[in-house]
Amino acid sequence: MSSEATYADWIAVDWGTSHLRAWAMRSDAPIAAATSDAGMGKLSRDGFEPALLSLIDPWLGLNATEVIVCGMAGSRQGWKEAPYVPVPCAVGHLPSVAVETASSKLAVRIVSGIRQDTPADVMRGEETQIAGYLALNPEFDGILCLPGTHTKWVHISAGEIVSFRTFMTGEMFSLLSKYSVLKHSVGDGWDTAAFGAAVTETLSRPESLAARLFSVRADGLLNGTETDAATATVSGLLIGAELAAARAYWLGQRVVLIGAEELSVAYGQALASQGVVAERADATDMTLNGLAAHRASLREHAS
Amino acid sequence: MSSEATYADWIAVDWGTSHLRAWAMRSDAPIAAATSDAGMGKLSRDGFEPALLSLIDPWLGLNATEVIVCGMAGSRQGWKEAPYVPVPCAVGHLPSVAVETASSKLAVRIVSGIRQDTPADVMRGEETQIAGYLALNPEFDGILCLPGTHTKWVHISAGEIVSFRTFMTGEMFSLLSKYSVLKHSVGDGWDTAAFGAAVTETLSRPESLAARLFSVRADGLLNGTETDAATATVSGLLIGAELAAARAYWLGQRVVLIGAEELSVAYGQALASQGVVAERADATDMTLNGLAAHRASLREHAS
Repeated sequence: MSSEATYADWIAVDWGTSHLRAWAMRSDAPIAAATSDAGMGKLSRDGFEPALLSLIDPWLGLNATEVIVCGMAGSRQGWKEAPYVPVPCAVGHLPSVAVETASSKLAVRIVSGIRQDTPADVMRGEETQIAGYLALNPEFDGILCLPGTHTKWVHISAGEIVSFRTFMTGEMFSLLSKYSVLKHSVGDGWDTAAFGAAVTETLSRPESLAARLFSVRADGLLNGTETDAATATVSGLLIGAELAAARAYWLGQRVVLIGAEELSVAYGQALASQGVVAERADATDMTLNGLAAHRASLREHAS
Repeated sequence: MSSEATYADWIAVDWGTSHLRAWAMRSDAPIAAATSDAGMGKLSRDGFEPALLSLIDPWLGLNATEVIVCGMAGSRQGWKEAPYVPVPCAVGHLPSVAVETASSKLAVRIVSGIRQDTPADVMRGEETQIAGYLALNPEFDGILCLPGTHTKWVHISAGEIVSFRTFMTGEMFSLLSKYSVLKHSVGDGWDTAAFGAAVTETLSRPESLAARLFSVRADGLLNGTETDAATATVSGLLIGAELAAARAYWLGQRVVLIGAEELSVAYGQALASQGVVAERADATDMTLNGLAAHRASLREHAS
């Protein structure tokens, strides 16, 4: 019997509030991946190392393996605080902090997040996706939109993040679908036409959001609206209002969407209705590129 | 030993989604009150009568006691459906449905809700508060605003509800405070100045809502904003956006607020900042007035 061990050159980690995701890397390519629900939000400070070890132990050799972490593990309530870097800033050489570990098999660094003082805003994790995109597209000037729980619109110029703005659109959709009176109206399906109509509505009348949301419920009661249409309408109303506020970011700009497939398609449709043809990049690929770029920059500075 | 029984002439009931509230009435005045959390949302159809009896049994005499119910007990998922009446409609003589009960001690009627087809909207319970207000102020022409989980703006003319619009403002505040990333930033306190500033912001830029909400979190992280200010800011941002959408209702109009004390004070402050001095009426008083008016109208039609 022979067994083949998956030793990693290094390990890439995206540690969010709700999930921990890790990849065994050989050079700049992933050779294995693992996920757990040991998100930052569920861990006390001394819970991080065991949670990480239980996930990546099979990939560790005898010597200390380099682990590069981005995301909420670097927040004040995380594993170790990696202070925010203020905008404008180049993402190619972001700072990171070393974390002392009990295990000698780990050499962990956590990448810094980014802050903006006016208007007040922060990011942790997205800066690494942005760094990954810019490593591949160093000449990019334009707008990166990262749709998700907290969607970010980011203005990039001359390799720097100039400014950004976060919208709670994804979290509001999730809360409304799960907990509000709209939970009776929505489902898992989708209706592209209803989404487009809803985007148009709140793009032109963003203030009507809270009333139009209740109309989805009333429509269900009075007219028996399909859940597919209701779900897409709630999403479209929220995204339309976001686009109205983010107009200065996308109007007449080159826009690239970095996010999960379905949500990026929805944002792409909404932008297309306004004459903006957005390009797309895969969020996980960009995270891995960004962590690899950070590792390369560490070596460069060490040499 | 002597014991005094609290027999009711009739019983007033406000049966919402989350709570059941009942009053023993002598003529048009309450002589006792009781509340339980047996809201419509927690009951199956055969749970309503036992839930009601367990609350009001001490008030019942030997003969059937008249019970007038408003609210969600009349919805399709409630005790018995009391179909919606379409606007425009006079609230002085709303229909109601009789409910058959196992107990001979009860003679129950549930008041109808109101529907609007375009834009789709519904109310159940508020129509009774409106009827109560109009019973006291039969000549009223203007706007009634009923702040709450689902705030209603209602245009009254010539004793009729002409049109209305529901905003999910209160429910969004509750969800954001309890479940979103903002739960780390808010508390039980209040800051009147922060509320006023937030109202002004979204009244002029309602589309900025989802971004400004995230700024509250970022401000907390970067600048250590007080929870009192953060709480009032979240509420102000939501109410300001609502006022922007409801402008046609309140601009240059006579406005009366019917709602809970604290929330009505907040809406009053927001409207005052726009030059509208709103009057106020107590929501419970209006509910009891409305149920009494409905009872009077039943007797009138029976005679």
